[in-house]
Amino acid sequence: MAKEPDSTRRSERSRRAIFDAALALVGEAGYAKTTIEGIAARAGVGKQTIYRWWPSKAAVLLDAFLDLGAQAAEAYGEAEIPDTGDLEADLKHVLRATVDELNDPRHDAPSRALAAEGVINPELGAQFVERLLEPQLQLYVRRLAAAQEAGDVRPGVDPRIALELFVGPLAHRWLLRTLPLTHAYADAVVDYALHGLAPRP
Amino acid sequence: MAKEPDSTRRSERSRRAIFDAALALVGEAGYAKTTIEGIAARAGVGKQTIYRWWPSKAAVLLDAFLDLGAQAAEAYGEAEIPDTGDLEADLKHVLRATVDELNDPRHDAPSRALAAEGVINPELGAQFVERLLEPQLQLYVRRLAAAQEAGDVRPGVDPRIALELFVGPLAHRWLLRTLPLTHAYADAVVDYALHGLAPRP
Repeated sequence: MAKEPDSTRRSERSRRAIFDAALALVGEAGYAKTTIEGIAARAGVGKQTIYRWWPSKAAVLLDAFLDLGAQAAEAYGEAEIPDTGDLEADLKHVLRATVDELNDPRHDAPSRALAAEGVINPELGAQFVERLLEPQLQLYVRRLAAAQEAGDVRPGVDPRIALELFVGPLAHRWLLRTLPLTHAYADAVVDYALHGLAPRP
Repeated sequence: MAKEPDSTRRSERSRRAIFDAALALVGEAGYAKTTIEGIAARAGVGKQTIYRWWPSKAAVLLDAFLDLGAQAAEAYGEAEIPDTGDLEADLKHVLRATVDELNDPRHDAPSRALAAEGVINPELGAQFVERLLEPQLQLYVRRLAAAQEAGDVRPGVDPRIALELFVGPLAHRWLLRTLPLTHAYADAVVDYALHGLAPRP
């Protein structure tokens, strides 16, 4: 393996330190009180180092979350929804992984801070949706469209709406903390959404 | 009709002015920057008038939201989910009304401010759920349990989980602003949840 130049390794170390500092700060202090200065101080880098790579606080935080998402995808295997041919098993697998990720304390505080800010700040919310959320939702669109082609989803069902029957309930429990997020809950949501609440004739 | 004593009418006017001021301020400035002093100034009452009735900012805001919810229930007929014997029609009716309420600009800013604070503030979030949200969710529990008794919901389905297939997707769209909240969307959610995404044999 070729040796990386020192400057590349230094840059990568700074980048990592900046992301860690940004996520820690936003989780502790909230979005409004997180500043580029605070991130720089905590990361042990100059403020200009951050401004060289990112134009704003929102930009560095979104990249930090994208990086966290990439790590989660590796840890929880969420890069693509598996297609074993068994839609119910595949959806239970991915919803259980989502439950684990939402319950992971490393993700909880920063993710809540970003979500809360997005609820009241339409501009940040739109960036959050476009860069972080919608790409994840498109994984469901692809899996559900494949299932539809295989005859496992009713013709006429819109996959972009259907996926919300899976992610909506989980997000609702997580954001509003109504009841515990468990694997059993994930399984029930998949069962109810696929087979319907009404009795089958 | 008996004439109300002047002091009762004055109290009711103050109460209304305090609720209006609290909702307006939290919608404009956010939860953190809303203060009892600010509410009192805007409502044109003394700060002691507020402290006589409520122990804290959270308490007056929760009561203001309960009052707003009561007004919405009147405007949108949401006090109870209708039971015409047609579960699908009844659910579409209530979900369309919820869409109208979520799209109502009078509710949007204060409701977002409270929801955002609940996402990052577990204590306020728990009060919000217990006093505002869970009573609304119990309306679904009752309607779905009645439908189950009538044979319109599969035996074994847990109504407290099932309702999240209706409210979760709507809350997801509203909170995260992914796509427009429309009556057609509400209808699709009801259709998919009741009849399932999988083809019926």
